[in-house]
Amino acid sequence: MDKKVSKNKTVLTNKSFPQFSEAHGSVSARRVNPDLLEERQKCDFDQQELTKIFYGSSYMNHKKYQKIINDNPTLHGNPDYYDMDRNQQMIHAMKVVEASGKTEIIEVEKDYYFKSELSIAEYLQGQVPFAISFSMFNLVVTNLSLPDQRVYWRELLTNRRIMGCYAQTELGHGSNVAALETTATFDKETDQFIINSPTLTSAKFWPGELGKFANYTALCARLIIDGNDYGVQFFIVQIRDKETHETLPGIDAGDIGPKIGYNSKDNGFIIFKNVRIPRTNMMMKYCRVDREGKMELDGDPRLLYSVMLGIRVWIMISAWMYLGQSVLIAGRYSVVRRQFNTLDSDKKIERKLLDYQSHQFKIIPAIAQVVVQNLARNHINNIYQAYILDLEKGSDNFKPLKVIHHLVSGLKANYTQNSYETMSKLRESCGGAGYLSSSGLPSLIQEYAAQVTYEGDNTVMLQQSARYIIDGVSKNKKYKEDALTYLNDLPQQFLNLPVINKHQDLSKLESVLDALRVRSAFFIHKTINDGMKIQKSKMSKAKLINEVFQQDQIILSNYHLAYYSVWSSCHFLEKNKDSMKCTNLKSHLIDLIHIYGLMELTKDSSILYSCGYFKAGHATLIQETLKQLINKLRPQTISIIESFDISDQQITSSIGNQYGDIAETILDQARNSKLNQNELAPGFKEHILPILQGKL
Amino acid sequence: MDKKVSKNKTVLTNKSFPQFSEAHGSVSARRVNPDLLEERQKCDFDQQELTKIFYGSSYMNHKKYQKIINDNPTLHGNPDYYDMDRNQQMIHAMKVVEASGKTEIIEVEKDYYFKSELSIAEYLQGQVPFAISFSMFNLVVTNLSLPDQRVYWRELLTNRRIMGCYAQTELGHGSNVAALETTATFDKETDQFIINSPTLTSAKFWPGELGKFANYTALCARLIIDGNDYGVQFFIVQIRDKETHETLPGIDAGDIGPKIGYNSKDNGFIIFKNVRIPRTNMMMKYCRVDREGKMELDGDPRLLYSVMLGIRVWIMISAWMYLGQSVLIAGRYSVVRRQFNTLDSDKKIERKLLDYQSHQFKIIPAIAQVVVQNLARNHINNIYQAYILDLEKGSDNFKPLKVIHHLVSGLKANYTQNSYETMSKLRESCGGAGYLSSSGLPSLIQEYAAQVTYEGDNTVMLQQSARYIIDGVSKNKKYKEDALTYLNDLPQQFLNLPVINKHQDLSKLESVLDALRVRSAFFIHKTINDGMKIQKSKMSKAKLINEVFQQDQIILSNYHLAYYSVWSSCHFLEKNKDSMKCTNLKSHLIDLIHIYGLMELTKDSSILYSCGYFKAGHATLIQETLKQLINKLRPQTISIIESFDISDQQITSSIGNQYGDIAETILDQARNSKLNQNELAPGFKEHILPILQGKL
Ligand SMILES: Cc1cc2nc3c(=O)[nH]c(=O)nc-3n(C[C@H](O)[C@H](O)[C@H](O)COP(=O)(O)OP(=O)(O)OC[C@H]3O[C@@H](n4cnc5c(N)ncnc54)[C@H](O)[C@@H]3O)c2cc1C
Ligand SMILES: Cc1cc2nc3c(=O)[nH]c(=O)nc-3n(C[C@H](O)[C@H](O)[C@H](O)COP(=O)(O)OP(=O)(O)OC[C@H]3O[C@@H](n4cnc5c(N)ncnc54)[C@H](O)[C@@H]3O)c2cc1C
Repeated sequence: MDKKVSKNKTVLTNKSFPQFSEAHGSVSARRVNPDLLEERQKCDFDQQELTKIFYGSSYMNHKKYQKIINDNPTLHGNPDYYDMDRNQQMIHAMKVVEASGKTEIIEVEKDYYFKSELSIAEYLQGQVPFAISFSMFNLVVTNLSLPDQRVYWRELLTNRRIMGCYAQTELGHGSNVAALETTATFDKETDQFIINSPTLTSAKFWPGELGKFANYTALCARLIIDGNDYGVQFFIVQIRDKETHETLPGIDAGDIGPKIGYNSKDNGFIIFKNVRIPRTNMMMKYCRVDREGKMELDGDPRLLYSVMLGIRVWIMISAWMYLGQSVLIAGRYSVVRRQFNTLDSDKKIERKLLDYQSHQFKIIPAIAQVVVQNLARNHINNIYQAYILDLEKGSDNFKPLKVIHHLVSGLKANYTQNSYETMSKLRESCGGAGYLSSSGLPSLIQEYAAQVTYEGDNTVMLQQSARYIIDGVSKNKKYKEDALTYLNDLPQQFLNLPVINKHQDLSKLESVLDALRVRSAFFIHKTINDGMKIQKSKMSKAKLINEVFQQDQIILSNYHLAYYSVWSSCHFLEKNKDSMKCTNLKSHLIDLIHIYGLMELTKDSSILYSCGYFKAGHATLIQETLKQLINKLRPQTISIIESFDISDQQITSSIGNQYGDIAETILDQARNSKLNQNELAPGFKEHILPILQGKL
Repeated sequence: MDKKVSKNKTVLTNKSFPQFSEAHGSVSARRVNPDLLEERQKCDFDQQELTKIFYGSSYMNHKKYQKIINDNPTLHGNPDYYDMDRNQQMIHAMKVVEASGKTEIIEVEKDYYFKSELSIAEYLQGQVPFAISFSMFNLVVTNLSLPDQRVYWRELLTNRRIMGCYAQTELGHGSNVAALETTATFDKETDQFIINSPTLTSAKFWPGELGKFANYTALCARLIIDGNDYGVQFFIVQIRDKETHETLPGIDAGDIGPKIGYNSKDNGFIIFKNVRIPRTNMMMKYCRVDREGKMELDGDPRLLYSVMLGIRVWIMISAWMYLGQSVLIAGRYSVVRRQFNTLDSDKKIERKLLDYQSHQFKIIPAIAQVVVQNLARNHINNIYQAYILDLEKGSDNFKPLKVIHHLVSGLKANYTQNSYETMSKLRESCGGAGYLSSSGLPSLIQEYAAQVTYEGDNTVMLQQSARYIIDGVSKNKKYKEDALTYLNDLPQQFLNLPVINKHQDLSKLESVLDALRVRSAFFIHKTINDGMKIQKSKMSKAKLINEVFQQDQIILSNYHLAYYSVWSSCHFLEKNKDSMKCTNLKSHLIDLIHIYGLMELTKDSSILYSCGYFKAGHATLIQETLKQLINKLRPQTISIIESFDISDQQITSSIGNQYGDIAETILDQARNSKLNQNELAPGFKEHILPILQGKL
């Protein structure tokens, strides 16, 4: 019964199936899948207007980046990237840096990384060298230095003569920055700081670019003078030789090994033993140490964390785009993939995935999330940018910091959490294809996964955000921001609402906004009241916060932020209503914000029943309204996600390309698997064949 | 300001920090972290009794497997595995097969893979060769063959003379098995079937072990006789030469490339061109083709899918263990990791993560899920095993198939979805450490991720499960299973409940069970009634199911399954109440089931307000009860998860080992990073150094 192989093996290619051409897309033949074409033809709004809204003031930059990338093959996403090992991925990333150094891109970034709303990270595959150097290291030497220091370090940095990293986290401490253990001890004799890692847990651990690439680090260490501990400050420390790139004496550093994502990035560890740096390498804008070891503070100490704040803003404003890339892939797949003959019309044609209601519920609320995360960020980003501008002009008004910190830390957590979880759901929505690296979804998600943790763990961020409300409301603080004025009189939001209640009509976006506000107001009021009652029983504040009401704080923040996000999205539309030309577009955006709000209510509205705002029937009403809105937007799905304006060169996906080519591309990528380079898998002859031949 | 390197570099090891020893765990010194020790000392129940409950009738096998693994270093989880490329991971997997072939393990599995409740997969790192051969291929030749065929193929298989795979999915069709395109055309002249892939989308795609390893496949193809299409059947096809292991003529096969996980597994594609097999290679138990090409059916055609059913049962019964491994890692980490000085007692000691309420909400409900998924599976597994036994004895009663399919497909989806999502949350709960491959969590999750898709995509499974209820209830079918009798009179479950309502006390598990039943009953009733109303308006059934009520079907299934799971867990405890000795243990189990039920209600209870079962105040009551129960179980957390009895040799985690050693192990693993083998990263000299030196 056994057969023997002949040497003339049949290898069938896509061309072996000529009849395939008609109904399917093909990247190689540049033929668009008719199913995708059909979707595009349904477009009833101005796509360019939407793209301009999405990118806002960065629209021109976006177009510039995109052109540079599209024109330069080295910068294209590379499908082979997914099958590379870490070494190869790193070399790939280095080549990208080389190539992009020759274009305009780095110029834009070099000047001032965070001036441009979008960083290059969202446009390129993997994580490239200099990314941390130009972002976090740059922010340290820009924001925390004296003018002289700033000129000195920025000159080196912008000319790429040094590569810096940002070393804050240690083995023992991540979230609790105040407890970091690395020391910088002032040595008056030599006018130097001596850097030490006094314990195993004080080893710096995680900094990107530290493992192999950086030759300098912005180091977060305890300032010690005459045996006194003045808490953490930033110091610039050279860590590797400029010629040989070997680590300097007293330094023990390396890569930390493989991770879920960021594998082209050399996150590293470093341990110091009596490493000396000049006193002037301390970043002295807000805290100065003079030749005599006298320490002087200037400004709000929280400004030390302004680097993290800056990065959080970037995380917050870019959350929509990572999610948008995932929606683009899963969305396109959902209209070219068909499964099951459930159409009434013609038994032979299977149904497009997106024509299943359950599938619409996977894709369209994700689009709603992209839209809200995009529109809502404008309000807080404007406040932040104005504040930065003020600071740069020399203002010493640090008051706005509080509300900025409240919203930015909260939204950082809320958006990244939502984006991450939705990206994962979108991957699942593609069935087996989503499990394939070539689909592009795995790497998008794996890289993004870090964002729920770094720059402030989401749980910690939500608590910090909650505290601004709890402290303020408890102390009867008057909130001035429009979005926050509801906090000034919480009970008014939910008491005496019988009339509104009766006529409550969730088919209007305003009613959903009301419901979200009431949900937040009632819960805040309740939490604070309960807390006050218990506090009277003399429980300590630490116990109360960490052991009794911590979970409520997290819920509280998310309720508040959901309201804020919908409010802020509406606010954006209202502010721009005159400049928006396309009425269909406006209506789609309203529908999407509406869907976002309703999805929030389906996640959790039980508290609204508790306060009497919702009555029997509301659950059904929410579900019905959602179904209607989702159904209404179904025909515009592809047109909306294609307005994110993400090119095939950016997303490298075998199932999400502009031609709607899935079968051919998936198979092509499969054939390229490194394992197919040899007929037999490595080791097979030694370990398995003998078993099959009964020799083992 | 630039410094030069000296050749005497300082490399600090863990031994450089002797003072570290006291407060920390150490794998190398076999010293248990005092924080972990403290947790263990709190244990107030019989851990072995719990372990025996968890493993049930597999307890002895479990102990046997564990011993074999612990005794054999080649079978240990290997921390270097995470830093291997695909080739190396495959070779590692082959060595595991070699080593395990010399032990008792494979003997147990060989005999009849699914007899033992636990497969070896949960005990070994990665996916090893022969796994599919011994599971799916084995099930085909065991369940779908005539006696002669069975003897022939099982002989070859159990002696490992062939390695088989299971080729069902094609590029074009996964969930819709009935639409597969590969053909097996009967050629009367030669008494053979001719296998062909008539289209590009008919290429088989995904089968594990197909890419490189298998020399045979169980092939799912359309049976064509005299131009008539008789639908899909299974055929055994040789695909590679026995001597050279090269693919046979007419066959084009290979690996499909990198994936999220399963990278040591060679999932493959295959395309056939006129490949001939003897007629007798068709699996003929339920469908026979004779020498003349006459086709004859015997038994229920759904039995063709019994292989998938068998695997679904395995997926369902093993879900708890994958989740359990993740809880073990995150749980141990949560008591040895401290962050922030928020303790009242002594300002110098930071708080254990698990002493934060929000962290308890991350860990303890996950334990509850493990417990419910473990206890609840017993009921349905018993029904399934009894049915299989009957079939083996020659029974032709196929009636139980319906309810088995209903519960198994539903629970497969419900459990894998919950486990997958919770595993991901647990990983996040470890902060940065969870992003490190060495923590073990990434690979656990990435391997598990496939389970929401394969053997029945979860969305499709939940719909199929719902249909059993919708069809049955619509037709006034009488349900006989205890767990399902509530379906016989739905309105009775939620009408006239004023008395219960007033005294409703969610601090009792029974009330939570009631609430879950009412939630399910009301929603089923409502969905069916609404559906009937619409159907009267002459909407087609396909439209109704797929475009109007599909999302409801999914909600409906999950509601029903949550009730069933809590019911079935209680049922287990009730049935075993006399044999359970430890009363504390019983009480902990009840509390955990209770937590599971309450978490379900926090996920979604709005419909309970709609039907009047819940009133204002219930939301608060649920939250309060949850807080109390979670707080009560806090001291037992580590003792419960350690009763899962998972050894350090099984879970390869730098943060979840039995010594509570995190700092030392994390740093050791980091130092082992392949990138640290050379001082400079590959490519750095060519691509980056010139930039830093201003030469580029
Ligand atoms: C890809 C990646 C890149 C990184 N890059 C850098 C870098 O360039 N430079 C750098 O310095 N660092 C970097 N980091 C480190 C990162 O900043 C830390 O991981 C982050 O700050 C979280 O700290 P941790 O990992 O120590 O978690 P922990 O602080 O130990 O938190 C662990 C868990 O405890 C919980 N927890 C902690 N405190 C509380 C509390 N008070 N209440 C309730 N729950 C609590 C958290 O929610 C979390 O679930 C990077 C991390 C990653 C993953
Ligand atoms: C790691 C791995 C190993 C595998 N091993 C094997 C193997 O050994 N042998 C083998 O034959 N196959 C194997 N498979 C394939 C697996 O069985 C399929 O991926 C699975 O059946 C799903 O099919 P699909 O990928 O074609 O998804 P599709 O069926 O295309 O589904 C895609 C999406 O559409 C949705 N959808 C589909 N139909 C409907 C509907 N009617 N209503 C609503 N939504 C719908 C789904 O929910 C999903 O979101 C493997 C897959 C993986 C990931």
